[in-house]
Amino acid sequence: MSAARRKIIVYIATSADGFIARRDGGVEWLNRPRVGRNYDMAEFYESIDAILWGRKTLYPKGLSEKPVTSLASYGRIKNYIFSRTPPAVAPAGAEFVSDPIARFAERLRAAPGKDIWMMGGGEIIGSFLDEAQIDEFIINVIPIFIGEGIPLIAPRHRAVPLHLLSLKRFEDGVVRLHYRVDKAPAAGPRKRARKQ
Amino acid sequence: MSAARRKIIVYIATSADGFIARRDGGVEWLNRPRVGRNYDMAEFYESIDAILWGRKTLYPKGLSEKPVTSLASYGRIKNYIFSRTPPAVAPAGAEFVSDPIARFAERLRAAPGKDIWMMGGGEIIGSFLDEAQIDEFIINVIPIFIGEGIPLIAPRHRAVPLHLLSLKRFEDGVVRLHYRVDKAPAAGPRKRARKQ
Repeated sequence: MSAARRKIIVYIATSADGFIARRDGGVEWLNRPRVGRNYDMAEFYESIDAILWGRKTLYPKGLSEKPVTSLASYGRIKNYIFSRTPPAVAPAGAEFVSDPIARFAERLRAAPGKDIWMMGGGEIIGSFLDEAQIDEFIINVIPIFIGEGIPLIAPRHRAVPLHLLSLKRFEDGVVRLHYRVDKAPAAGPRKRARKQ
Repeated sequence: MSAARRKIIVYIATSADGFIARRDGGVEWLNRPRVGRNYDMAEFYESIDAILWGRKTLYPKGLSEKPVTSLASYGRIKNYIFSRTPPAVAPAGAEFVSDPIARFAERLRAAPGKDIWMMGGGEIIGSFLDEAQIDEFIINVIPIFIGEGIPLIAPRHRAVPLHLLSLKRFEDGVVRLHYRVDKAPAAGPRKRARKQ
């Protein structure tokens, strides 16, 4: 048996109007009683062994501040933090990355391992998407409009066809959309999706 | 039997990143072979007898130009076009409205009839939402990211809890999200939804 190619998967919650946070980064609207075994989070977490972080997501106030979450708490997970100006020392369990995205991603995929969680935010997701290095999106749509905020993907004219892999409704109205990114050039709306 | 209160329903398609059109109004990304009996459009159309249009949606280039669609083709449907500076003469089957939204909406609901289709765009949807005059959203999510564009609702800080009424997956990956707007002040995430 040959191992499956490691996939890079965006797993994230958005408001029903497509934002991952308020303009100031606020996610108070995400606070709700967790249902569905925390929206099947454990199952996803079991499937990955690395997390990709945009610098601004982990260090919104800059690299001289503490990260917003302790990476040590991620245990067995390898954390990669993207920064054009990485400091000399990385937190335990983490590594700074300033390589070109395609080179980094191909190196990571070539190494044995599980799938890779692209944590975001929108800028690093956009950069990976533009390099055709995102395989799937799992989006938990929270039943609320927040009106304005930080979009899932950094704004830019795009045309990225998606293939719906699965759809799930949780009891509190959260909807999970699971898409595969169709990387082949769009030949038409009914073209066959790329095989993994 | 007393008639049900007429509802004002936003029925619209968005990209998977939440846009109703490209920045220039382009909707070429909506062109796809129609499935699921045109996404159950006929069923919805049967349930309404009036359409609310924002001026910019119908006359993007101004009231001196032709509307983007012939309202005469809507047959039995009564069309209301919102404009602060309405011309003296309206197209056949249409009426210009410059009344305050709440007053107009209450008058419309008081008259007997079917439900009312809020066609958009984002500005008129936002204005109605701010006046608590939107009852439901039916959003057909097209499986494509377009990256940037005109949002479903005009941007503004909001906190509009939604109640998922139904979820449907069409064979081509289009997902229909049907939400009721919870108009009661948010007391907590598990509060009871308003009864219609």
